[in-house]
Amino acid sequence: MSCVATFAIFPLKQSGEDSLAPYVARALQIVKDSGVPYQLGPMGTALEGDYVEIMDVIRQCHDELRKDCDRVYLTVAIDSKAGEGGRIQQKVSHVGELLK
Amino acid sequence: MSCVATFAIFPLKQSGEDSLAPYVARALQIVKDSGVPYQLGPMGTALEGDYVEIMDVIRQCHDELRKDCDRVYLTVAIDSKAGEGGRIQQKVSHVGELLK
Amino acid sequence: MSCVATFAIFPLKQSGEDSLAPYVARALQIVKDSGVPYQLGPMGTALEGDYVEIMDVIRQCHDELRKDCDRVYLTVAIDSKAGEGGRIQQKVSHVGELLK
Amino acid sequence: MSCVATFAIFPLKQSGEDSLAPYVARALQIVKDSGVPYQLGPMGTALEGDYVEIMDVIRQCHDELRKDCDRVYLTVAIDSKAGEGGRIQQKVSHVGELLK
Repeated sequence: MSCVATFAIFPLKQSGEDSLAPYVARALQIVKDSGVPYQLGPMGTALEGDYVEIMDVIRQCHDELRKDCDRVYLTVAIDSKAGEGGRIQQKVSHVGELLK
Repeated sequence: MSCVATFAIFPLKQSGEDSLAPYVARALQIVKDSGVPYQLGPMGTALEGDYVEIMDVIRQCHDELRKDCDRVYLTVAIDSKAGEGGRIQQKVSHVGELLK
Repeated sequence: MSCVATFAIFPLKQSGEDSLAPYVARALQIVKDSGVPYQLGPMGTALEGDYVEIMDVIRQCHDELRKDCDRVYLTVAIDSKAGEGGRIQQKVSHVGELLK
Repeated sequence: MSCVATFAIFPLKQSGEDSLAPYVARALQIVKDSGVPYQLGPMGTALEGDYVEIMDVIRQCHDELRKDCDRVYLTVAIDSKAGEGGRIQQKVSHVGELLK
């Protein structure tokens, strides 16, 4: 099984902070430390792994932000497919090859 | 903690099935059996509970569809907030009261 | 063509406001005034219509919140299908009939 | 105003096609031809521009796929902010600088 997921997480009530970047950085540190393949994008972070593995990383990000944020918003999209991994790169390269 | 989530799940390669409703019904049966408060909508199902509880229900829905679907797409949005539950109804009624 | 959409919109920097409900109510007023079939849910509002019609309603909601919100977050999911309308109710009732 | 959006679009009933990549490539060609800054990711394509501009590109992608797909699913998330553009790169680099 290969699950490719993308998630975005941010506080809905930040206290004074003008930018969301510090919150995203805290979540990304957890992703990085987890060892799963990932790719940071402008609107979310893509991960690849099995379902339980990537959902566990996302739960840790949620718990980290909830430490000091009363309200957190999280979106996740998952493409879960039978077969081998390595799709985080393949999905992009397959499309690229088909472009004129 | 109260997490209100909405999720949508469906196969990306269905075999012959013309409608997605049978797949959604299988997921909804799991939600119903879980005992968490829920609300079925036209584009997704809303759940309320603590983070681990609702994510576990969603994982069961994923595993159920992956039994016979090679590829499944899942989206989840979560509003996770300190404080008491009962928000699945309150969120709708608060907005209703503010409408002219 | 029938498009059933669900959307959620809220400010990322609210000034003092403790609840998001006043913002959601402003968007919902626009939806209501538009005359398109809609259904308010705990995590978003569902709409039905043709693509251009519902996207125009959502744009008006965006423009309304941006009047006094420096930063607004919007998510939309659309299920766009050939054939007749009335799906905002049908999608829910079809699933309900399949449940034990 | 700078809107950074990410969108994913795919058919819900593909006829025989085993991969979604050809559909994504058709949408991406439209994005590329539009001239808006974009970034292809494993789970969606990020765009930057003003609200009307990027929503028009996404509508063209929808119309292209609906030419031969009876049912299309589309998700969009938009971060709409007062101020200057160039955020499609900045959002990623700001987070990167904050990582250990």
